[in-house]
Amino acid sequence: MIRIGVIGYGYWGPNIVRNFNSADGSKVVAVCDLSEDKAKRAGKAYRDIRVTTSVDELITAPDVDAVAVITPVFTHFELAKKALSAGKHVFVEKPFTYRSDEAKELLDLAEKKRLKVMVDHTFLFTGAVIKIKQLVNDGTLGDLYYFDSMRVNLGLFQHDVSVIWDLAPHDLSIMDYLVDDKPTGVAATGEAHFNHGLEDVAYITVYFPKNVIAHFNVNWLSPVKVRTTLIGGQKKMLVWNDLDPDDKIKVYDKGVDVANAEGVYNLLVSYRSGDMWAPKVSQTEALKLEAEHFIDCVTNNKTPINDGTSGLRVVQILEAAEKSVKQKGAMIPL
Amino acid sequence: MIRIGVIGYGYWGPNIVRNFNSADGSKVVAVCDLSEDKAKRAGKAYRDIRVTTSVDELITAPDVDAVAVITPVFTHFELAKKALSAGKHVFVEKPFTYRSDEAKELLDLAEKKRLKVMVDHTFLFTGAVIKIKQLVNDGTLGDLYYFDSMRVNLGLFQHDVSVIWDLAPHDLSIMDYLVDDKPTGVAATGEAHFNHGLEDVAYITVYFPKNVIAHFNVNWLSPVKVRTTLIGGQKKMLVWNDLDPDDKIKVYDKGVDVANAEGVYNLLVSYRSGDMWAPKVSQTEALKLEAEHFIDCVTNNKTPINDGTSGLRVVQILEAAEKSVKQKGAMIPL
Amino acid sequence: MIRIGVIGYGYWGPNIVRNFNSADGSKVVAVCDLSEDKAKRAGKAYRDIRVTTSVDELITAPDVDAVAVITPVFTHFELAKKALSAGKHVFVEKPFTYRSDEAKELLDLAEKKRLKVMVDHTFLFTGAVIKIKQLVNDGTLGDLYYFDSMRVNLGLFQHDVSVIWDLAPHDLSIMDYLVDDKPTGVAATGEAHFNHGLEDVAYITVYFPKNVIAHFNVNWLSPVKVRTTLIGGQKKMLVWNDLDPDDKIKVYDKGVDVANAEGVYNLLVSYRSGDMWAPKVSQTEALKLEAEHFIDCVTNNKTPINDGTSGLRVVQILEAAEKSVKQKGAMIPL
Amino acid sequence: MIRIGVIGYGYWGPNIVRNFNSADGSKVVAVCDLSEDKAKRAGKAYRDIRVTTSVDELITAPDVDAVAVITPVFTHFELAKKALSAGKHVFVEKPFTYRSDEAKELLDLAEKKRLKVMVDHTFLFTGAVIKIKQLVNDGTLGDLYYFDSMRVNLGLFQHDVSVIWDLAPHDLSIMDYLVDDKPTGVAATGEAHFNHGLEDVAYITVYFPKNVIAHFNVNWLSPVKVRTTLIGGQKKMLVWNDLDPDDKIKVYDKGVDVANAEGVYNLLVSYRSGDMWAPKVSQTEALKLEAEHFIDCVTNNKTPINDGTSGLRVVQILEAAEKSVKQKGAMIPL
Repeated sequence: MIRIGVIGYGYWGPNIVRNFNSADGSKVVAVCDLSEDKAKRAGKAYRDIRVTTSVDELITAPDVDAVAVITPVFTHFELAKKALSAGKHVFVEKPFTYRSDEAKELLDLAEKKRLKVMVDHTFLFTGAVIKIKQLVNDGTLGDLYYFDSMRVNLGLFQHDVSVIWDLAPHDLSIMDYLVDDKPTGVAATGEAHFNHGLEDVAYITVYFPKNVIAHFNVNWLSPVKVRTTLIGGQKKMLVWNDLDPDDKIKVYDKGVDVANAEGVYNLLVSYRSGDMWAPKVSQTEALKLEAEHFIDCVTNNKTPINDGTSGLRVVQILEAAEKSVKQKGAMIPL
Repeated sequence: MIRIGVIGYGYWGPNIVRNFNSADGSKVVAVCDLSEDKAKRAGKAYRDIRVTTSVDELITAPDVDAVAVITPVFTHFELAKKALSAGKHVFVEKPFTYRSDEAKELLDLAEKKRLKVMVDHTFLFTGAVIKIKQLVNDGTLGDLYYFDSMRVNLGLFQHDVSVIWDLAPHDLSIMDYLVDDKPTGVAATGEAHFNHGLEDVAYITVYFPKNVIAHFNVNWLSPVKVRTTLIGGQKKMLVWNDLDPDDKIKVYDKGVDVANAEGVYNLLVSYRSGDMWAPKVSQTEALKLEAEHFIDCVTNNKTPINDGTSGLRVVQILEAAEKSVKQKGAMIPL
Repeated sequence: MIRIGVIGYGYWGPNIVRNFNSADGSKVVAVCDLSEDKAKRAGKAYRDIRVTTSVDELITAPDVDAVAVITPVFTHFELAKKALSAGKHVFVEKPFTYRSDEAKELLDLAEKKRLKVMVDHTFLFTGAVIKIKQLVNDGTLGDLYYFDSMRVNLGLFQHDVSVIWDLAPHDLSIMDYLVDDKPTGVAATGEAHFNHGLEDVAYITVYFPKNVIAHFNVNWLSPVKVRTTLIGGQKKMLVWNDLDPDDKIKVYDKGVDVANAEGVYNLLVSYRSGDMWAPKVSQTEALKLEAEHFIDCVTNNKTPINDGTSGLRVVQILEAAEKSVKQKGAMIPL
Repeated sequence: MIRIGVIGYGYWGPNIVRNFNSADGSKVVAVCDLSEDKAKRAGKAYRDIRVTTSVDELITAPDVDAVAVITPVFTHFELAKKALSAGKHVFVEKPFTYRSDEAKELLDLAEKKRLKVMVDHTFLFTGAVIKIKQLVNDGTLGDLYYFDSMRVNLGLFQHDVSVIWDLAPHDLSIMDYLVDDKPTGVAATGEAHFNHGLEDVAYITVYFPKNVIAHFNVNWLSPVKVRTTLIGGQKKMLVWNDLDPDDKIKVYDKGVDVANAEGVYNLLVSYRSGDMWAPKVSQTEALKLEAEHFIDCVTNNKTPINDGTSGLRVVQILEAAEKSVKQKGAMIPL
């Protein structure tokens, strides 16, 4: 039984508490929030769980095996470092940290202490991503050509981070999971329309070794909500519309066959257009599966699919994207 | 009565012939295609129209007042130059030319000869764009924040130009028409997946003086066809889905109100969310209106909304985008 | 403060308890369920609420002012009668009763006792129906021509009632609320495909005095979920798609103008086709508004919009529909 | 080479002429329209085709092997009878005739004269219906439960027939083709809202021997165009949305499994919910395939899938529906 202490009981914290508390193999023993109100709310919802406003009290409690850090990104490093130093496994909200050297320091510390670090890339545990990963792995899609995601809506403006740090981590973590190759560079553009100077519209291109390319359209100023990803493969192509209640994933037997290519003008391109297929996608709550995966990794000393290393890779791309935006699109090598 | 000679009777030429022939104020007197088969097809469809395989014969014919150049982009400059030199007005398929200095030379020549140049930015004459232009001009949208278009499908591969030159001219000409400010720079990324080395996937950002930003997603490898543009304004936001048979334009009374902003953390952002409104959009064939506009401009010595200067601006962006792609996203000033 | 006793804590009961408990002006004092498990679950969720498995105990409790009957339809009559006899106001799940003479008896009893009866036609309190009612009342739609609803999905099979009694009450209560005239007859068809003999597919036509017609398509065997109602009026027409998360109601400025009509062949019909408009619809939980309406009616002696009389009218149509189905569609006068 | 004479060159006639003229194995030799203008238009479009305003001249011409009757329904009987009497095969626009005894007389005459009668049930030759027929025949759907079609829009008002005769023939002919059993009765309701007294909204139920049921929703007063058919089978269920440009047919692996049924309350119903599959549907013009089928049937003495007998069955249902509407829904046996 892994005993969890949760720091942060704002928007997302209650979901973390609920899932770790009800999972087989873990229970939440303590919740901490700097806000007394929020701490009290946790106490009211779970009478058996200890609540506190003291981070140190929670982190050093001997009955806590692992600490979940569900707080603003700027605080992740310090809190996770304290927890690891105290010998606790950590589960950190995404993005992992605000700077990549912080992430690296945490990884070193975890390795030294032989502790697990998991980053809350929740989407990896959705039925949709599980299915897409399977279609990539079993060769259904063939070699990947591109990954193109759009995640826009009239957004919750953040006061501390731009739309890049707010929305892109979801899709970057998914891309990181699906594409085997490691990215080589990032080129990004964007614009801020309000006077806090944080981008509310941004476009990120991620380059890969061969000719795989990924692109991310994130926008807090869209009148409509869009959550769509196109994935083009040599054999098949896929559309994932996360807002479709029934058929989230559609796999198209469409593509391009290049028959012969003696010089540009003899290139014989032909098009395939066949059936479409929408595989059934599991409806199990992603956070439930993620909690079980955390428990399994801690208990059986396994490496999480969403370990700190993957969290670091996402932070590196975010960092590069932020830098590229400042340079109006210049590619930042990774 | 403007007498038109049309060069090129391939995919698009027949539409040009049909519209200029049936418009009040113009008629097609001659059609030229290098392919004898295509020239014959024109002759069969229109018994009263002279057909030829000789460009020079058509261009120098004394009964031709204006020449329509509906041929591959690489030939535009030479053909338009011949026509202008022969004292004919010209109507040129988009993109205007393959290089911007060619476009400039044509504009100089036309000015010297006091002849009209119109570039076939057909979309400016669709009911949808006419309506959007009106909503921009009458202040309904307020100051523009961004213009974000997506034009993807399993494409007709071109052997001679990349997806940028094939698909982006449509949206660039529309942006050029809607946004009053002139763009300051272009950053683009893209990738080629087949061995002729021409990009089949590309992402183009266009910067404007203030904080207006435009983005173009063009892709020949998409399993689904998408023709959607988001336009965000200070007062209202708009979605144009050109594939929606009924409600192509939806105007949302949604937006962000920034009340007060004493420092970043006091920024008071509130969201408006009101009615949606889909104005009726005219169904008149765009090419019919464009032909009438050409006749009007030639007859009454007016400047076309899609004159050579707008054609030049589009070519400059295409050129810059191509250059930026080669530099992996670095911004090319305009 | 209206003190509520709730009978039935199955699928819908918890929502009733939650809303009556949190509404200003009411609180739930007791919950009864014949199943000890369910009663216990209520007790666990609400520590301050008395739970019991005895209907009589709840109904006769002196601290209960009103009883909510959230049980299978066959039990409504007996339970509501007991409650009214004990001097309690009643809130009854839809459909009101299984037979119309039962409904009438309850209405007589309530009148004699000067007690309120409200039937849980929840949909009348949704943002969508509130908006449509307003559009009907303010003359936006003009005289109504037809009301055509489709409510289909792969359904929860009921063991005790057909799809007519399960799904149609929603739409019948909405129609009853929107159409001022009272229906004159019902013709219905349907079929049962499983051996319990209860219809799983049914089609109901409701006739009105003039030439207004209503139709209801209900089906438990549909692979897709559809919740769509078309309402045709002389001035405007409306589509209500309850599954559209953003634009549930679309009002079309479309219609038919009949100019002159001297004899059949001189009938001059012209079509209007104008803008579409999607008014913003309130997101407030319907049950919250319904609870407040109940409190208001009891406190201030008002007649609920969803009073027992409207419940009776719905039951009369259901009864007639059931009879008509047995007669293969023959119209049953109301 | 079958030589065709076409009577009627209004809305649909030009499509018939074009397809029979370009099909291998047939050519159009003469076109007749009572309107001199329309006859002239045919002559202008096809210089090699004889045009006339005399029906008798066309029908008795010795170089005409078959007559296509593309005129209002009231004239079908007389014209087809003349053509058959003159020894010509006939191709008749749908619906076959306005009365079923007329249809029977034509069938008798055709049989006596050993001539072919084909009714223009064009939809049977669309890629969608061809695919659905295949899915029914190969057992993919399993035993059919229901056929439920909706065909509504702001309609072309007809001056001579109701919406039943205008829109329902399409879907009735499709149902007749897909469902093996023969219908046993019809119950229909509807309403006329304009003073020519012809229904503009109607609902038709068709009963079959076992518990198969079909329903048709036809409406000339809908603000939106809908062309959707649900087909429920024991094994799979299907949605055909004819307005979807990409995925017209979606086959759902959804259904109900009834495990055991000892008495009503022990009925064990379980639901299957699996993948969805959208088979590719041929885009070949239906009328082209229909023309080829006509040629094949005449040349090789085969029975058309859309022969006069199927035309008669559709007319019988239309007749019964009209009768049932007058009786407010009473079932008319077939």
